[in-house]
Amino acid sequence: LILSLKPNMTENGLGHRERVLNVDTMNPNVKRIEYAVRGPIVQRAVQIEKELKEGVKKPFTEVIKANIGDAHAMGQKPITFFRQVIALCVYPDLLEDDKFPEDAKNRAWRILQACGGGSLGAYSASSGIEVIRQDVAKYIEKRDSGIPSNPDDIYLSTGASDAIVTMLKLLTSGEGKTRTGVMISIPQYPLYSAALAELAAVQISYYLDEDKCWSLDVSELRRAVKAAREHCNPRALCIINPGNPTGQVQNRQCIEDVIRFAAEEHLFLMADEVYQDNVYMEGCQFHSFKKVLFEMGSEYSSVVELASFHSTSKCYMGECGFRGGYMEVINMDPEVKLQLTKLVSVQLCPSITGQALLDLVVNPPQPDEPSYATFIKERTANLHILSEKAKMTEQVLNTIPGIHCNPVQGAMYTFPRLTLPEKAINAAKAPDMFYCMKLLEEMGICLVPGSGFGQRDGTYHFRMTILPATEKLKIVLEKIREFHKRFTEEFS
Amino acid sequence: LILSLKPNMTENGLGHRERVLNVDTMNPNVKRIEYAVRGPIVQRAVQIEKELKEGVKKPFTEVIKANIGDAHAMGQKPITFFRQVIALCVYPDLLEDDKFPEDAKNRAWRILQACGGGSLGAYSASSGIEVIRQDVAKYIEKRDSGIPSNPDDIYLSTGASDAIVTMLKLLTSGEGKTRTGVMISIPQYPLYSAALAELAAVQISYYLDEDKCWSLDVSELRRAVKAAREHCNPRALCIINPGNPTGQVQNRQCIEDVIRFAAEEHLFLMADEVYQDNVYMEGCQFHSFKKVLFEMGSEYSSVVELASFHSTSKCYMGECGFRGGYMEVINMDPEVKLQLTKLVSVQLCPSITGQALLDLVVNPPQPDEPSYATFIKERTANLHILSEKAKMTEQVLNTIPGIHCNPVQGAMYTFPRLTLPEKAINAAKAPDMFYCMKLLEEMGICLVPGSGFGQRDGTYHFRMTILPATEKLKIVLEKIREFHKRFTEEFS
Ligand SMILES: Cc1ncc(COP(=O)(O)O)c(C=O)c1O
Ligand SMILES: Cc1ncc(COP(=O)(O)O)c(C=O)c1O
Repeated sequence: LILSLKPNMTENGLGHRERVLNVDTMNPNVKRIEYAVRGPIVQRAVQIEKELKEGVKKPFTEVIKANIGDAHAMGQKPITFFRQVIALCVYPDLLEDDKFPEDAKNRAWRILQACGGGSLGAYSASSGIEVIRQDVAKYIEKRDSGIPSNPDDIYLSTGASDAIVTMLKLLTSGEGKTRTGVMISIPQYPLYSAALAELAAVQISYYLDEDKCWSLDVSELRRAVKAAREHCNPRALCIINPGNPTGQVQNRQCIEDVIRFAAEEHLFLMADEVYQDNVYMEGCQFHSFKKVLFEMGSEYSSVVELASFHSTSKCYMGECGFRGGYMEVINMDPEVKLQLTKLVSVQLCPSITGQALLDLVVNPPQPDEPSYATFIKERTANLHILSEKAKMTEQVLNTIPGIHCNPVQGAMYTFPRLTLPEKAINAAKAPDMFYCMKLLEEMGICLVPGSGFGQRDGTYHFRMTILPATEKLKIVLEKIREFHKRFTEEFS
Repeated sequence: LILSLKPNMTENGLGHRERVLNVDTMNPNVKRIEYAVRGPIVQRAVQIEKELKEGVKKPFTEVIKANIGDAHAMGQKPITFFRQVIALCVYPDLLEDDKFPEDAKNRAWRILQACGGGSLGAYSASSGIEVIRQDVAKYIEKRDSGIPSNPDDIYLSTGASDAIVTMLKLLTSGEGKTRTGVMISIPQYPLYSAALAELAAVQISYYLDEDKCWSLDVSELRRAVKAAREHCNPRALCIINPGNPTGQVQNRQCIEDVIRFAAEEHLFLMADEVYQDNVYMEGCQFHSFKKVLFEMGSEYSSVVELASFHSTSKCYMGECGFRGGYMEVINMDPEVKLQLTKLVSVQLCPSITGQALLDLVVNPPQPDEPSYATFIKERTANLHILSEKAKMTEQVLNTIPGIHCNPVQGAMYTFPRLTLPEKAINAAKAPDMFYCMKLLEEMGICLVPGSGFGQRDGTYHFRMTILPATEKLKIVLEKIREFHKRFTEEFS
């Protein structure tokens, strides 16, 4: 029996041995990843939906999902112009069709000219199609009141996720006490903690101030970085603005303070600005890190290293499925840029339909073009509805005894605080998970427990999106009210 | 001066310090990556194209790129049905249009029903849209003469690249002598070496036998794994079939031998089958690893762990830009599957247009459907042209003294061997790079040096695709003839 003589084999032959790849032998960094946005609650929600379809009786007839920032899944309609242009690019025979407006055709034609062989089916340069990178740079210049942007600093990506992970990857090095540490907010968007776990980089948590509308306080950054210097090498600071899961919008002063802090502490800045159009609250305004950095003068703008991220997934268009995105890098070492280009080359290129859609986002119809009026109408309507839902969510939640909700200044989420009865806290290992699971089972509402994003010890939250259609959102909020009351009584 | 007291700061303030992220501080694994398919030659080619546009005089009027497996970039036209369905999905108003055939509309409607909110703009489940995973499973069953495939074993991906990197990531663990080793062919497709460098896994090279049409000999696998066991933990074996860059197609016997070897040596098998439709040579046939594994009986099929990969980028459709792909995992530990699902969740989901396109690839028009005839005509024509170009490439190259070319049995490439004059070998550090760069500068032909894929020491090759349009391919081959002669004379 030759087989039984080989390494790793039992004498029973092939049949009775362990798998090559099992939970003991697999990548331990992958095991350490936690990812709640699609965790057990969401898996159970999918199961319940199947049960409902199969006719299983439940105290509700549908599951309403408010767990993920996915506007189209919640019924938001795509921007007509965007879809027209992409359809024309996909099937250029339509360029002959009079049903499509001229500006859509021109745009499609321009994108196709920039594609290899005039087809969306060709790979592009790994950093993205050059014309689109130029359009992105122009968009940034316009957004930032003329502060110049260089297409060579733009890297298109497969959603913002891809670019964020790529930047974290570049930044990770060292071992033990010299291992790269990356500062992320708590609560955070769990892509960050997941990527750091996978890279075995050190997560440095700084807490947002719930009592001050989830604002960021530089003294907390100081505390966190100081403590971290004891055991790792802090090298980057990640900011999400407007915030996920907390919905806050940073003011200009705060951004300046953060930039000054990054400069002092010699940290690479990563600004996640995928919600840049999602600002609802009066008095709040989106300020890009890039713009503030340059307005602070060359003492800062010539040295502070910054990567900022944008995506087609959020804002008024919500085109998550296209996986379009970009990052702009400022003051990046030219040699590192070459390394970055090489790194992204390995995966060939981002989806071309995603790149094309991004081009439309950064270069939408202009006032003199036929599609302008409709475009503005659709964009305004989408943002208006989001703004109304943001207000409604805050208002209704704050009328529920035992729930406190900060204003939803921007983004698409709220992260309200729950007062839970002692008995529930003592009964469950993860009280907010227990709460959310019960809410799902009893009410058919799918939220994500606060623990998935991080929260101060002894506090409990859930994250909920404001995305369900207005009528559904009302139902969600009323069901939460009913459930929270019942839950509180049950465990009192 | 508070600033000068902070760590990492010089007394000159912010201006004179090192960057946070520079080549000394960046991720050393990323630095170790080599990626020639888009390396210096290709970058120079892009530059030359710009120079030509600007009117710079060259001994040629256009650069012909035969460096990358990108059919559409080289003029291949998309499959009409595929693009019709995707256009309908992107812009569903077109469902009212009589210009589109009914089967295309039905297909689009079916895909949209499976999308969140009926829109390509919603995220899908991270492993892909369920209906599409079911269609993939059916496709595999049909391809493999009825051997069952389970949709729960299918993970859709962003091109095959994404899934391959994900599998390698899962497999990587250990330190020093227990570090995961992965066997890859030499020559190889450099995604593999790049991913292993990035993961700091150990590359175990096994050589394909150039004298036997680049076939794989199990005794070479034995040699390689035995040597590797001295310094790492060999855990996976990667096979590309049909081969890139070598164009060979493995026979059934060889695949059986490989499977037996993997079983004996307790290795996880990774079968890269993205060229499964690209078989040109009479007597050659594509055999999937999955099918052969199951035909070998349950002694093997119940234990050997296998992941196989497919893509929308190659075959007859060549839709690289859509970044569609899937992997099927066989005998994967259920707990590892949960970990895999979690891992892919972090990046949310593959592009939905890519998923939709994949659905059409695995579920093309059927004989009773209106689009069938055109579909078959287009598919057959594309494969026929590729087949002719494969033959022509081999034949012409073999008439050039100093070039030896194995038959292009499949895939889209040839990796001919160059006899280079001693003087050239001694003059250049990388003789094949020198050769290819000169070929580019003098002839405007863009190929990739063999060193980018690996080759036996002291041998020299280039990789060239068979994708340029027939007339261009003829020019490429004649220019290589002229250049090789001149090069040989110059250095003799
Ligand atoms: C803060 C933040 N960053 C990045 C992303 C990633 O989005 P995508 O990869 O779809 O662009 C999200 C998605 O929800 C997000 O909320
Ligand atoms: C052997 C092989 N595997 C995988 C890929 C990746 O292709 P994609 O990511 O476009 O599916 C390629 C691309 O050329 C390839 O040649």
